[in-house]
Amino acid sequence: MPAQPSHNPPHTGPDTLRADARENRDRILRAAREAYALHGIDVPISAIARRAGVGVATLYRRFPTRTSLITEAFAEQLAECAGVLDEALEDPDPWRAFCSVFTEVSAMQAADRGFTHAFLARFPDEPSYAGERDRAEEGLALLVRRAKEAGALRPDFDVSDVVLALLANSGVVNGAQAKSAEASRRLVGYLLESFRARPDIGQLPPPARLELDRLGGAR
Amino acid sequence: MPAQPSHNPPHTGPDTLRADARENRDRILRAAREAYALHGIDVPISAIARRAGVGVATLYRRFPTRTSLITEAFAEQLAECAGVLDEALEDPDPWRAFCSVFTEVSAMQAADRGFTHAFLARFPDEPSYAGERDRAEEGLALLVRRAKEAGALRPDFDVSDVVLALLANSGVVNGAQAKSAEASRRLVGYLLESFRARPDIGQLPPPARLELDRLGGAR
Repeated sequence: MPAQPSHNPPHTGPDTLRADARENRDRILRAAREAYALHGIDVPISAIARRAGVGVATLYRRFPTRTSLITEAFAEQLAECAGVLDEALEDPDPWRAFCSVFTEVSAMQAADRGFTHAFLARFPDEPSYAGERDRAEEGLALLVRRAKEAGALRPDFDVSDVVLALLANSGVVNGAQAKSAEASRRLVGYLLESFRARPDIGQLPPPARLELDRLGGAR
Repeated sequence: MPAQPSHNPPHTGPDTLRADARENRDRILRAAREAYALHGIDVPISAIARRAGVGVATLYRRFPTRTSLITEAFAEQLAECAGVLDEALEDPDPWRAFCSVFTEVSAMQAADRGFTHAFLARFPDEPSYAGERDRAEEGLALLVRRAKEAGALRPDFDVSDVVLALLANSGVVNGAQAKSAEASRRLVGYLLESFRARPDIGQLPPPARLELDRLGGAR
């Protein structure tokens, strides 16, 4: 039997309740995305609840763990990121593919401080997240191998240099403030110049073998 | 007339007082350097006093402003940095000079998180600091011009790219944690590869024209 919509808010029927719940949920997710973009993912839950105009108890009812809130808040961008990688993996030109992934992920970093943390931090209690991250690692490794095999990427490039480059980009994004987008583009331009295979490449210090979860510690 | 040393601490003579003051001063500076290295220069004065084992009032008696404490704490490293620049300016090989400044300042950044902030932040109430910074800017600009004229540095390199590179390095240093020294060396290696003039350089996005004081905002 369908519920009768009530005009008395404290005694709302299931449909209205569901609509209210959905609205609360959307407000919380919007507030979380804003707060993460400004302050990174370490922002307290209470600050997100305040920004959303809901009580902390309401927030915890919708999102029982911090991780579940972060995961939901970035679901769209995660999908976008996975899309960038999938598209690159279908590109027949491995150097263009490598450049586009690095360029687009760096631009996402520049647009949203919280995103890098959210995407790359390890959340042991969130298997779907770890799955996405593992998939990203495999995709990146494949792109790197193909670009090297094509003679476009320098042979001493290490997969961990992707993490190095994203950390460097996060430093520029955080430090350049109002100019972060243009500063990030300039840095990416330089780094791609240094990654390109050439007849006269110089010797590099050994790779630091950073792991993707290093980015979780970046401020 | 020389003061009589007293054996009653609350009534110490000038010599003992001076020794006590010097000891307090050294302890405060040591604590400040440690705290800045770990947390950057935004660490509260009260935390430094606690770390030094002195009261906040004592700290303020020795260092009436936050800036005076920061300046003193980094005096040695400032001198070291100025030395690196002076030495480079005397090097007859402009590319080697450019590389050595970038390499050594990046290593200082990797060794001490607080240093970059302290050296490059603008302290309007501390003219000696501003003087050092202006001198650094002039020295860098001269190194860049010479390295370009020698055909060693790419012609589209902008002086502000030094700031870009130091911001990138600060991101790597902060993010790579235990591996920050080796990660920083690897990044510097890549960036120098991309800065080098070559017959086949690619086109870069325009410079972001960051100023040295941007580094003060880097976390």
